[in-house]
Amino acid sequence: MKAKNTFTYPLRVHIEDTDCTRLVYHSRYLNFMERARSEWLIQLGFNSDWQKDQGLFFVVKNINIAYLKPAALHDELQIISEIKELRAASLVFRQYLRLSELPDKLLCEAEVKIACVNEDMRPCPLPEILKQSLKHFIL
Amino acid sequence: MKAKNTFTYPLRVHIEDTDCTRLVYHSRYLNFMERARSEWLIQLGFNSDWQKDQGLFFVVKNINIAYLKPAALHDELQIISEIKELRAASLVFRQYLRLSELPDKLLCEAEVKIACVNEDMRPCPLPEILKQSLKHFIL
Amino acid sequence: MKAKNTFTYPLRVHIEDTDCTRLVYHSRYLNFMERARSEWLIQLGFNSDWQKDQGLFFVVKNINIAYLKPAALHDELQIISEIKELRAASLVFRQYLRLSELPDKLLCEAEVKIACVNEDMRPCPLPEILKQSLKHFIL
Amino acid sequence: MKAKNTFTYPLRVHIEDTDCTRLVYHSRYLNFMERARSEWLIQLGFNSDWQKDQGLFFVVKNINIAYLKPAALHDELQIISEIKELRAASLVFRQYLRLSELPDKLLCEAEVKIACVNEDMRPCPLPEILKQSLKHFIL
Repeated sequence: MKAKNTFTYPLRVHIEDTDCTRLVYHSRYLNFMERARSEWLIQLGFNSDWQKDQGLFFVVKNINIAYLKPAALHDELQIISEIKELRAASLVFRQYLRLSELPDKLLCEAEVKIACVNEDMRPCPLPEILKQSLKHFIL
Repeated sequence: MKAKNTFTYPLRVHIEDTDCTRLVYHSRYLNFMERARSEWLIQLGFNSDWQKDQGLFFVVKNINIAYLKPAALHDELQIISEIKELRAASLVFRQYLRLSELPDKLLCEAEVKIACVNEDMRPCPLPEILKQSLKHFIL
Repeated sequence: MKAKNTFTYPLRVHIEDTDCTRLVYHSRYLNFMERARSEWLIQLGFNSDWQKDQGLFFVVKNINIAYLKPAALHDELQIISEIKELRAASLVFRQYLRLSELPDKLLCEAEVKIACVNEDMRPCPLPEILKQSLKHFIL
Repeated sequence: MKAKNTFTYPLRVHIEDTDCTRLVYHSRYLNFMERARSEWLIQLGFNSDWQKDQGLFFVVKNINIAYLKPAALHDELQIISEIKELRAASLVFRQYLRLSELPDKLLCEAEVKIACVNEDMRPCPLPEILKQSLKHFIL
């Protein structure tokens, strides 16, 4: 877990994230991971205005997620994001969740493949400036 | 509760609707009510394509909701919708939830004011055909 | 797609399911699939009361989901669920979504591994009666 | 807007919060307000462990919310929370949302009545220590 290659996004679990098992509902982890990816791109300068100017969108193509330990109400979590692959018109994030207090215990981990598409939902090359910016985060 | 003046929408409570209290999360009732309003308009012929053709949108302006009894996992609910007021550019729904098995026990009730707006979010008269269709449901 | 081996769950896409791309938000498909699994178990007689009596819970361990085509507002969808594997203390569902009107076009497909656990979250054998009931749905 | 009487909770609008109108889905504002109330109580020392020790829960009884201006993707918001009333077994929050960049423009405002209940969902007096802590925030 070399810090220089990752982006860390903190969040707290709220009541809305839990379900009747008293733990976090399983699909909420995908929302958390999406927030972390968006926040990362915003901080790198690739916000929604930039995407609109470029006429491109990022769409989720595939997710493979393993649930290891549950998170509970008011837990303070960290989502760690890395780039696993940068391809011509897609990229693969590796993301995992952990408790802020126990960074060695993973709660879940996922690989998320994102495709770059134009307004007609056709595959579209990743802009060179985005690739240059993200390649520093390849594992 | 005269049936002819109301629209009844059934739904089942699922895990995603519950929270760590084991009951339905409070904002989910608003989602349930929105589903019921949309389904009603669709059945009356005013679906999203019709709205797009008319260049109009319906936006929520005000909600006043009272929570009376909680709903729980896998409960079968009914959302009853009525029209309380039809104005020039807005309408007020009265909606309430009950258990399908116990129709006399209300779980929550709300008044929801909806405004009709154009693509610039400016108030816009309710189309006459919509008013004609809904006026039969006024309390 | 032999009907006898599958469970079909219909639903309509509502505003709450969409996001600013005007399409269904990616994690919502997991919610749809969970609703379908729960409804199937309820119809087979294994509802939440049964689970409580048995002192067992079903938890999601792994999901692998591929997004093929997007769903949009007010689409009428079908979620098709099958059993891919029945193991001692876990089972694997294969689930996919399609438009009711175009049953040959898949929108997304997933494999979902569910573990059976006791109140201490320890793995726990699947009850024999559940295995007998589900084995007819193995692919 | 005297700062000493209020609690300010910042958040960013994410894709999951938006709907097909490209704006924030109306019920999400209730979630935002609940996060703000919970975070406030946590910071005052009344977290979920404290509530469990006391054997009490806070349940939403009534919400009256007015939607004034919409929020959009990636907006940075502030939720301002105040205490409007402290009663024997309930309290009323006044909460409103604004853009961090334009603190004078309200996006929505709400009054939220919360009841204090015991494990049987019976009304229960607010603990004196909580009342002492919150009375400084009465308008």
